[in-house]
Amino acid sequence: MKIFKYPEQKQWKKIARRPLHKAAKIEKQVRKILDRVRSKGDKALLRYAKQFDEVDISSLEVTPQEISAAHQSVSGELQSAILQAKKNIESFHLSQQENISRIETMPGVSCWRRSVAIEKVGLYIPGGTAPLFSTVLMLAIPARIAGCSEIILVTPVKKGSNTIDPAILFTASLCGIEKIFKSGGAQAIAALAYGTETIPPVQKIFGPGNQYVTIAKQLIQQEGLAIDMPAGPSEMLVIADETADPEFIAADLLSQAEHGPDSQVLLLTNDEFLLDKVGAQLESQLNKLPRKAIAIKALENSRMIVLRNIEDCLAFSNLYAPEHLILAVKDPLLLENKISSAGSVFLGHYSPESVGDYASGTNHTLPTNGFAAMYSGVSLDSFVKKISFQQLTTGGLRNIARIVEVMAEAEGLQAHKNAVTVRLNKL
Amino acid sequence: MKIFKYPEQKQWKKIARRPLHKAAKIEKQVRKILDRVRSKGDKALLRYAKQFDEVDISSLEVTPQEISAAHQSVSGELQSAILQAKKNIESFHLSQQENISRIETMPGVSCWRRSVAIEKVGLYIPGGTAPLFSTVLMLAIPARIAGCSEIILVTPVKKGSNTIDPAILFTASLCGIEKIFKSGGAQAIAALAYGTETIPPVQKIFGPGNQYVTIAKQLIQQEGLAIDMPAGPSEMLVIADETADPEFIAADLLSQAEHGPDSQVLLLTNDEFLLDKVGAQLESQLNKLPRKAIAIKALENSRMIVLRNIEDCLAFSNLYAPEHLILAVKDPLLLENKISSAGSVFLGHYSPESVGDYASGTNHTLPTNGFAAMYSGVSLDSFVKKISFQQLTTGGLRNIARIVEVMAEAEGLQAHKNAVTVRLNKL
Repeated sequence: MKIFKYPEQKQWKKIARRPLHKAAKIEKQVRKILDRVRSKGDKALLRYAKQFDEVDISSLEVTPQEISAAHQSVSGELQSAILQAKKNIESFHLSQQENISRIETMPGVSCWRRSVAIEKVGLYIPGGTAPLFSTVLMLAIPARIAGCSEIILVTPVKKGSNTIDPAILFTASLCGIEKIFKSGGAQAIAALAYGTETIPPVQKIFGPGNQYVTIAKQLIQQEGLAIDMPAGPSEMLVIADETADPEFIAADLLSQAEHGPDSQVLLLTNDEFLLDKVGAQLESQLNKLPRKAIAIKALENSRMIVLRNIEDCLAFSNLYAPEHLILAVKDPLLLENKISSAGSVFLGHYSPESVGDYASGTNHTLPTNGFAAMYSGVSLDSFVKKISFQQLTTGGLRNIARIVEVMAEAEGLQAHKNAVTVRLNKL
Repeated sequence: MKIFKYPEQKQWKKIARRPLHKAAKIEKQVRKILDRVRSKGDKALLRYAKQFDEVDISSLEVTPQEISAAHQSVSGELQSAILQAKKNIESFHLSQQENISRIETMPGVSCWRRSVAIEKVGLYIPGGTAPLFSTVLMLAIPARIAGCSEIILVTPVKKGSNTIDPAILFTASLCGIEKIFKSGGAQAIAALAYGTETIPPVQKIFGPGNQYVTIAKQLIQQEGLAIDMPAGPSEMLVIADETADPEFIAADLLSQAEHGPDSQVLLLTNDEFLLDKVGAQLESQLNKLPRKAIAIKALENSRMIVLRNIEDCLAFSNLYAPEHLILAVKDPLLLENKISSAGSVFLGHYSPESVGDYASGTNHTLPTNGFAAMYSGVSLDSFVKKISFQQLTTGGLRNIARIVEVMAEAEGLQAHKNAVTVRLNKL
């Protein structure tokens, strides 16, 4: 990790810069995949499965037999852990339901809004090094609470096999998802966007993925479909004062660093002595990690920064807009309302980021790459649209009529005015 | 308007199709404008103003003198209409504020979320045939309620003059916007995205515009900025039963048709006799409209459709996902919760769409082009991000520890597990 001690404020912007990622030169390739799935449907998916996943898939849809087999091969301990995580995530996302508040803006003029589920949503769960059944929870639970009528899950088979990780299948079925399909990468996104003979098209696509998936989602968005949010590598920022435990901090930094070689972790502190202690802990903990090689790469992109006080740490953090922010300080609640940009915040010494990844209840699909400055993480909101309603009584129309007439006339929109006038004339 | 009588359900999708718009072949031109503003800043803006708006602008920023002159040239009647509209829009958007609900998902595990303003937002108000001061209200009011710390408004001067419509300046200043700049089109979007010597860059861009603006916003979004929503031509769908007044319906359809030649209006009814009556009203009202030529073009894209009953009308409407939906029926409240896709809904015979455009309180920046199936209109939500928080007591960590450890291990993320374990070991 690079160390910066008391950098001047004018340098912060430079220090807060994310590592530059090579602009993906794969857009052309992704466009070709999208086109081919659009025109050839299932056939294209099966061919890509052979090419990329090295497997002959006989049927794209997961069968009930495969699901019950998955139930049997997930350990009882993991099943009950997933079940409890599900309960917690449900509680928190249920608390995000909005009551309808019908208000009278003027006598006789009532306005309200109602959250209505997006009907057809597609959840993409990547393959790769970790079987992300936790992401199934994070996407399927709010989709179900919202009341989406069609929830499609698409995920690739394990390379060279015809099977999906059983924990993914178990979790999906636990969450009531009935349509699960075997496909991965840009071709899976294409299938969700355009539909194939087997896979129904959806209106909004959720879920993480590699650069192919990311670019496919971007292209799909330009064509008019909705996506959850723009993607980028995972990241964490820890603000620590002298009460922080170096062992905890190192463990937290590594938990983010193990995500991928392009992850970034930052430690901000007002306690210069913390740096060496955390450094020593990093070294000793790192050696025990199976994903050590990945974490080492990520630490190369990472920084420890000493600033004069915790206020400066907060200001730096707000500038950086981290996906995950840990407040490893004495009185974290005092800082809560000074946070202007972050995805998810973990307060105090006993709130490690990994509890939010799995089970505390908050969503782990969060804005990275500085997008936390203007995007929210996935929540119940992501699966609904809020429709506004209004109803005027004849008295209400009388009260508002002149206002609308005058404004419409001033904008030169006579027909807008007339829609009010013809009604007034009949009252 | 094209007429369809009792089309079979399998034909609906075809009938509900929007008119095809020529794919804009201007992306290259827009990219050039973006690049030039990025590299040349103010100089590029001034040059484009000369080229497109035919005017030598001395200073990009609107001066306090210009604003007080605007106050004087807006009539008292218009001022008080705008003031009342502002109050109504404020009431409705204030009602969208979310209380913080802190919940315990497990004993000792607290989760909550907080809405925090996006700091820097840019509002674009187009020039063109109508001075859209109403759009200033619709964007500036929620931005202020959200608490955005920097609200920038950019709008072009009237062609050939150095002035902005006084009602736009009056409204902006009434809403407390202090930074107003003279620029229009793709170059204005570029200025908001990249910043220039005079115009500060923002994090999210709002507002309508022509194809150049739309494409500039799309490109900007790909580069990582946020935008309000994808754009398309304005549209309205009216569901009418035998209690509907043909004069009202015709007035409503025309109020949408006058927006632009690419607008689309649809009338759905179960009362075949209504068609001729509405047709006659359209003809007589049309002749009195200053924007008749525009409305006639829009009506060419438009449809009257007779279906067997109101349930079918609703089903068709949900398929179409209209920006504006008028329920000109006897008991509109009975239909309310059967609406699955629409931007804003107007219930009953005395709720013309134009009241929502100006003054009822709801927002008029709404999803068009079928985007109402998965996007919400602009609301207070559009100006905030919702940050999630969590805090665990030591007891809370004990309660959740095993769940997280088991799940992290099953995903092969040992460092995630370890962040919990190191803490457990110290308890």
